[in-house]
Amino acid sequence: MHADLTIALDMMGGDYGPRSSIPAALAAVEKHPRLILLLCGNRTVLESALEKANALSHPRLIVKHCDEVVTNTCDPAQALRNKRNSSMRVALDLVKSGQAQACVSSGNTGALLSMAHYVLKMLPGIKRPALITSVPTEKKQPVYLLDLGANIQCDPETLLQFAIMGSIVAGAALKLDKPKVHLLNIGLEDIKGHDGIKQAARLMQGCSAINYQGYCEGSDIFSGKSDVIVCEGFVGNVALKTCEGIAKLIMFKFTKALKKHLFYRSLAFLLRPVIKKLYKRVNPDQYNGASLVGLRGIVVKSHGNASKKAFMAAIEEAAREVDRRIPDKIQAAFEEMAPIEETSVRS
Amino acid sequence: MHADLTIALDMMGGDYGPRSSIPAALAAVEKHPRLILLLCGNRTVLESALEKANALSHPRLIVKHCDEVVTNTCDPAQALRNKRNSSMRVALDLVKSGQAQACVSSGNTGALLSMAHYVLKMLPGIKRPALITSVPTEKKQPVYLLDLGANIQCDPETLLQFAIMGSIVAGAALKLDKPKVHLLNIGLEDIKGHDGIKQAARLMQGCSAINYQGYCEGSDIFSGKSDVIVCEGFVGNVALKTCEGIAKLIMFKFTKALKKHLFYRSLAFLLRPVIKKLYKRVNPDQYNGASLVGLRGIVVKSHGNASKKAFMAAIEEAAREVDRRIPDKIQAAFEEMAPIEETSVRS
Repeated sequence: MHADLTIALDMMGGDYGPRSSIPAALAAVEKHPRLILLLCGNRTVLESALEKANALSHPRLIVKHCDEVVTNTCDPAQALRNKRNSSMRVALDLVKSGQAQACVSSGNTGALLSMAHYVLKMLPGIKRPALITSVPTEKKQPVYLLDLGANIQCDPETLLQFAIMGSIVAGAALKLDKPKVHLLNIGLEDIKGHDGIKQAARLMQGCSAINYQGYCEGSDIFSGKSDVIVCEGFVGNVALKTCEGIAKLIMFKFTKALKKHLFYRSLAFLLRPVIKKLYKRVNPDQYNGASLVGLRGIVVKSHGNASKKAFMAAIEEAAREVDRRIPDKIQAAFEEMAPIEETSVRS
Repeated sequence: MHADLTIALDMMGGDYGPRSSIPAALAAVEKHPRLILLLCGNRTVLESALEKANALSHPRLIVKHCDEVVTNTCDPAQALRNKRNSSMRVALDLVKSGQAQACVSSGNTGALLSMAHYVLKMLPGIKRPALITSVPTEKKQPVYLLDLGANIQCDPETLLQFAIMGSIVAGAALKLDKPKVHLLNIGLEDIKGHDGIKQAARLMQGCSAINYQGYCEGSDIFSGKSDVIVCEGFVGNVALKTCEGIAKLIMFKFTKALKKHLFYRSLAFLLRPVIKKLYKRVNPDQYNGASLVGLRGIVVKSHGNASKKAFMAAIEEAAREVDRRIPDKIQAAFEEMAPIEETSVRS
């Protein structure tokens, strides 16, 4: 890990606030000796929690007081206007000013997107930020899926930019030169999908910056044939949340089926650890968090009901993205392509 | 079951053609004494298969010879123009002419949609047909999900019509007076989603023909809180296929996790029946098929790789829809609403 890695945490966001963010912060500094965490939130609340954990004077846990909180029901536009002293906004401001190299929040996704966009600004040449996460596959390596809801509807150029950004994230994480990119559609044949999808496919086919492999379907997401899957935010959000729903249903039905038969009931107890581990693995949104890419800074969104483990996983993800210099790499990739575009515009 | 219920089957469609459709037809007439099946397909192939099963002279299995097949790669527009003597088209023609009360196909979905639309025509007042299926929930009753891909993009009025048709299908199947309808979105709050979704929500709120309950998310699909969930075809198709993918992944990971430990390995064998049953249950697209609603006739689409059991389940679903008089009920509901609309147009 990077020397003196500083990450700002929105301690008050999500369903549990400091109840999960404090234990996560403690575990993170314990595990990573060079990690410095800027804890943004109500000083009284945070210091009382740190005191209880005998960590009030921890040299790498620094409280940044702010007295407002962006709640889950807060309208993003209002949060942007009125919550300038919220834990979420202060964490983003610390990234903007360079005092932190990344930030993590489990708060209101819409508000985080608006604020991050406003505070950090887009990297040059990039139209829209995207939410990206990795999901498990049948192979050893996961697949990166974007957009997950930052942009409900996307034009073809935006989908192409997502493919490029997704390739950089997946390439750095999976150590791949040419990550395989698929475009999510409702069939594999050229005639499938609406005009926007077909046009995005043509743009991707003609783009040398990515290794475009064609369409994939919902049933292919977890097969391991792709490294990056691109879709509109509405579709990606529904797909990921549907996974969450079906994973819960399967666990529910499985436990029920086991309990139904006396013979299996005795096994249910023994199987619980396997089932629990599996549930976590197939429910990645819950576990890894999602990253916002395309901005001049690193922002990781942890799940709204992130546990200590989930929030800590998001902190570690932010640290990895600092090490991997994701924003620099995205900027370099777009700068490399830009002169060609500019030339063609000028000529 | 209805007296003398006649169903036309496209015997040549799907990945397995007669290899699954013949055993399914045999099992269906065996189980349902009043069921008459019109087997559309190549006479030589079908009669040879029937002969092998000692059923060549079965009084309720009638071969309707046609020498063309709509393949899975066939373009829907071309299928419509050039495949007038295909097993798919002949099965639909038999419904149109009244010789059959419903038809079942596991062939090319796009071609089936185009042909069914062209041959059977829409019910009066309905803009577009929709593909609907039921998926399991944590409660006893399933939830009906539409559209699954008949209409990639839908305007708000079309989504409202889908909500009305879905309510009729779910009401008849689940014996409910006022099925609860949700609109699939990327969040529960009013501000979430694009303009088309928000406008559809307003239309549904103002429609007395349905019991609209607001937005739901992908993670709510299987919770049992809805009886009907409405979405655009692109989204519904991705959601359903993602379920297929994640169900497969969970089974794969679970079996792998069990095999990893010697202790669990011995359990894997014992657990196989539970896992298999569960997989089928959470993979409804595979098992039940989907119905095309809004047309002047009943069309059930079985999964492309439908097994004997899946194809038979689709035949039984078609029979139930005949009994429930789904097209009549949809027509009645739209006729009841139509005078109001006409009055308002005239005034």
